Amino acid sequence: MGEVVPTSAAVGIDIGGTKTVAGVVDANGTVRGCRWLRTEPERGFEAAVARLIRAVEEVMAEVGLRADQLCGIGIGCAGPVDPRTGRIHNPYTLRGWEDCDVVSPLRERFGVPVCLENDADAAVVGEWWVGAGRGADPVVMLTFGTGVGGGVIHRGRIYRGAEGQHPELGHLQVAEGGPQCYCGRCGCLESLASGTALGTAGARWGWADARAVLAAADEGHPEAQALVRRAVEAAADAAWTLAHTFLPARLILGGGLMAVLYDQWARAIERRWTGATQFRPSSVKVCRAALGELAGMVGAAALGMGLLARPE
Amino acid sequence: MGEVVPTSAAVGIDIGGTKTVAGVVDANGTVRGCRWLRTEPERGFEAAVARLIRAVEEVMAEVGLRADQLCGIGIGCAGPVDPRTGRIHNPYTLRGWEDCDVVSPLRERFGVPVCLENDADAAVVGEWWVGAGRGADPVVMLTFGTGVGGGVIHRGRIYRGAEGQHPELGHLQVAEGGPQCYCGRCGCLESLASGTALGTAGARWGWADARAVLAAADEGHPEAQALVRRAVEAAADAAWTLAHTFLPARLILGGGLMAVLYDQWARAIERRWTGATQFRPSSVKVCRAALGELAGMVGAAALGMGLLARPE
Repeated sequence: MGEVVPTSAAVGIDIGGTKTVAGVVDANGTVRGCRWLRTEPERGFEAAVARLIRAVEEVMAEVGLRADQLCGIGIGCAGPVDPRTGRIHNPYTLRGWEDCDVVSPLRERFGVPVCLENDADAAVVGEWWVGAGRGADPVVMLTFGTGVGGGVIHRGRIYRGAEGQHPELGHLQVAEGGPQCYCGRCGCLESLASGTALGTAGARWGWADARAVLAAADEGHPEAQALVRRAVEAAADAAWTLAHTFLPARLILGGGLMAVLYDQWARAIERRWTGATQFRPSSVKVCRAALGELAGMVGAAALGMGLLARPE
Repeated sequence: MGEVVPTSAAVGIDIGGTKTVAGVVDANGTVRGCRWLRTEPERGFEAAVARLIRAVEEVMAEVGLRADQLCGIGIGCAGPVDPRTGRIHNPYTLRGWEDCDVVSPLRERFGVPVCLENDADAAVVGEWWVGAGRGADPVVMLTFGTGVGGGVIHRGRIYRGAEGQHPELGHLQVAEGGPQCYCGRCGCLESLASGTALGTAGARWGWADARAVLAAADEGHPEAQALVRRAVEAAADAAWTLAHTFLPARLILGGGLMAVLYDQWARAIERRWTGATQFRPSSVKVCRAALGELAGMVGAAALGMGLLARPE
């Protein structure tokens, strides 16, 4: 007998500043189909919602999921977002989408429960459900891309702090006198270890972006190597702090930069932990994100399915 | 009619490297009596347990608590401790007490449930129950004394990480190139902002201990002022990181140093938060520990009463 293919499924949506992906995910966590589109926030929120609804309709048709088989929709979105009201408020990477209710139009169109989460939280949910964090608790994920995001699972739930806010792990303080960040501090993790940080610092030597800095470092340019070293030091400092705060059983590293840098960074973090006396280094495993660019979409689908407790 | 005085009560015990306190606390959190004794770890674990049992008997007699009115005993102890096995393993400040079962002899003598926790966790439980953290969640407490300890309450429980370990908030990375700490890193919070750190750094200028450094700073000595400034900067950095990780509704500052320095440090932390964009500064209130030296004993009694979920 073959594997049982669940007939019902959820839709997961991951909205980033540049790209959006909508997919159908079944109760086993299998992605049955997905569709990428440009977010194009500058064309306005309503136009984006219309494109999103069309994309969901198309991917459902593609995988043959009928409306009555859809059990829910989860959305992960570049934050800040408010999971309790379903509103996006992101003046940084979704300029113009301020106080925008993304949940209601989808709920009205599809007639199912719809929930909204921060994209970093959706990603850690995805990895915890069917990726690198499977079976572990607590789980912390750091995502190194344009910025540095993060999310935490603790006791089977998304960790939330005061007033339901979520941890902003990209802004841990890691260095004195580092570059100024929009978070309000100099020397936070993101200001040193994000794609933007590498690109901005590399511009001084004529490198166009983070990719160019990484290529130059590979070719042996000492300035590029110094920038990458500074970034990995910042990541190792942040990992040290996370091991003494959230103390995750798994520390998952993901995001575009990790496609190239994972091995080097994981080694640097593990080296940093040699000689640690205040936690058991063997209890905190560093691992590579397993779901790639689909983590947030898969995690959003898990939330849409109601697999985790809703925000209070 | 007068207030109802609960007839049943728990015993709380707080074991530090130097001093131990045992007290009787009722279900309202009122301390009905307590007794201080020297820990004297060098005289051996068994002798210490015998003194502890005598102290508990004496304080129970003093407040008129009969054996059948005692509902449980909670112990907070300078860690590492293992709450699941009831064993102390602290080679740092309780030298010689390695793998020592403190729970069984008390359970055998008094015939009630006995539990063991890290002293920093017991302290945050006390403050959360009837002190500065009352009604708030999450709550983080930092204790600045000989060392720097900390504990976290989240969703009404003590936060635990991988393998049940508790966060060691004294060892967050805060500065590059700071002094070497026994935790394995240079520049952690404790290496810069503990009483030991101030005393060690001040020895270079002839000050005997942290108290002498603080006095010299008060008298205007620039070197002493620089040391205190470096310590407060480290505390503000750590507070920044905590606001982006645990995101507590209350950040409680306690310990001996705060008796003198609280106002200055709370102001420095609040100043640091001006211009923060990634969390709402108004949602994270800095406040002074309310229970003083009794926080750990009161929290231990709450645990002895079974007011919080036991470790799994």
